[in-house]
Amino acid sequence: MCQLLGMNCNVPTDICFSFEGFSARGGKTDDHRDGWGIAFFEGKGCRTFLDAKPSVMSPVAELVRHYPIHSTHVIAHIRKATQGKIALENCHPFLRELWGRYWVFAHNGDLQDFYPDDLKFYQPVGKTDSENAFCLILDELRKCFPHSKPPLEKLFPILREVTKNLAEKGIFNYLLSDGEHFFAHCSTKLCYIIRQAPFAAAHLIDQDLTVDFSELTTPSDRVAVIATTPLTDNEVWTQILPGELLVFQDGLPHKFA
Amino acid sequence: MCQLLGMNCNVPTDICFSFEGFSARGGKTDDHRDGWGIAFFEGKGCRTFLDAKPSVMSPVAELVRHYPIHSTHVIAHIRKATQGKIALENCHPFLRELWGRYWVFAHNGDLQDFYPDDLKFYQPVGKTDSENAFCLILDELRKCFPHSKPPLEKLFPILREVTKNLAEKGIFNYLLSDGEHFFAHCSTKLCYIIRQAPFAAAHLIDQDLTVDFSELTTPSDRVAVIATTPLTDNEVWTQILPGELLVFQDGLPHKFA
Repeated sequence: MCQLLGMNCNVPTDICFSFEGFSARGGKTDDHRDGWGIAFFEGKGCRTFLDAKPSVMSPVAELVRHYPIHSTHVIAHIRKATQGKIALENCHPFLRELWGRYWVFAHNGDLQDFYPDDLKFYQPVGKTDSENAFCLILDELRKCFPHSKPPLEKLFPILREVTKNLAEKGIFNYLLSDGEHFFAHCSTKLCYIIRQAPFAAAHLIDQDLTVDFSELTTPSDRVAVIATTPLTDNEVWTQILPGELLVFQDGLPHKFA
Repeated sequence: MCQLLGMNCNVPTDICFSFEGFSARGGKTDDHRDGWGIAFFEGKGCRTFLDAKPSVMSPVAELVRHYPIHSTHVIAHIRKATQGKIALENCHPFLRELWGRYWVFAHNGDLQDFYPDDLKFYQPVGKTDSENAFCLILDELRKCFPHSKPPLEKLFPILREVTKNLAEKGIFNYLLSDGEHFFAHCSTKLCYIIRQAPFAAAHLIDQDLTVDFSELTTPSDRVAVIATTPLTDNEVWTQILPGELLVFQDGLPHKFA
């Protein structure tokens, strides 16, 4: 299995604090050692950092911990391989282009006996159930909306339907974003916290590190951090319900009927 | 305009030395300051590092200069914007998936009045002529070979044809690879050097730095470095002829009839 970390904000924010705790789980405080990755949207642009090395000993992860990249949509992943060997092509997040936007996907879970053989537009490069699922999701979205991105109220039911079908095959917690919308699906385990004014100090679980966000923020800032398990021990994290597909926008979760 | 750097080898090799000189041209020894990027293939996997900052002051470029990533297929680019603002989405190299492989593309040049409106499978995310050209190339390849990658002798004539048509619209030097094949097209300016036994010392033009490759290599190693202009001043670089599309494999250039 793996772990997920996501961030969605109303103003570009760096993820250094959260990533410091999260990446410690890639070989220090937990055993998700089989590679890691992170994707940052900056406008329509997107850059991913990937490494098949454990995040605690990856020079690229060291850069990400200390170089503040400001982004409104971030998806990160540390891997504990279930399907697919330890290799760069099996590291999440995966990236594809759809409707002239980059889409990024990371998965925590395990889909059993899942080998889609009718993918039309998107093919996996690696050997994971996760990348297969991502390709299937994009394939379905593209089949339904061949030319351009539909409004969220049209996109959401299709995504929910394909998500539901995939979740029947096993454990399927995921984060998905195109830099505009940010989807978080809980199959078994996923939680979030919203940080907004009045900001307070937060203390990591995995490192003895505290940040006082009141010193770093303006009153209108709002940041949602989504993770497999809480990253801090002095804040209240909200569990997402199994089966729930949330859409984060401007640092707030939305439910659709 | 921009500059290109590529590397193709018979064994995974790091590009630190060449990138040290190349990245100096992104604001120190030359004025290609409008972003940069580099893509490394590792097996079927690919990781790109992108930054809209000048390469001489980008912390990500600093990592790439000093962290030896071993790869057989590398494509790098420093940008001097002609079309498209300075932004992450306009930084080369661009990446897409085709036939279950990642394809990476970087362009030096300028295509005039080029706004393809009939792209079927691939859409540009940014606003450059370069990404449009990349999408058109992949679209044509995919139209001709919808299901899987054909042998090189079938792929090459199609690529040469679409390249020729694009080159008629302006300046079109490019590097293109899927981690298996490595294509280099010269429209106006592109050169290469093959380093193989007996290895010697090489001295950069853009930095006072010498590396003695005989100390770092084995006799069977072979490395092709491709660049817009020579990176070293004590080696003989070979100019690629305008109109020529070379295929590098295992560190050697091949011409197809």
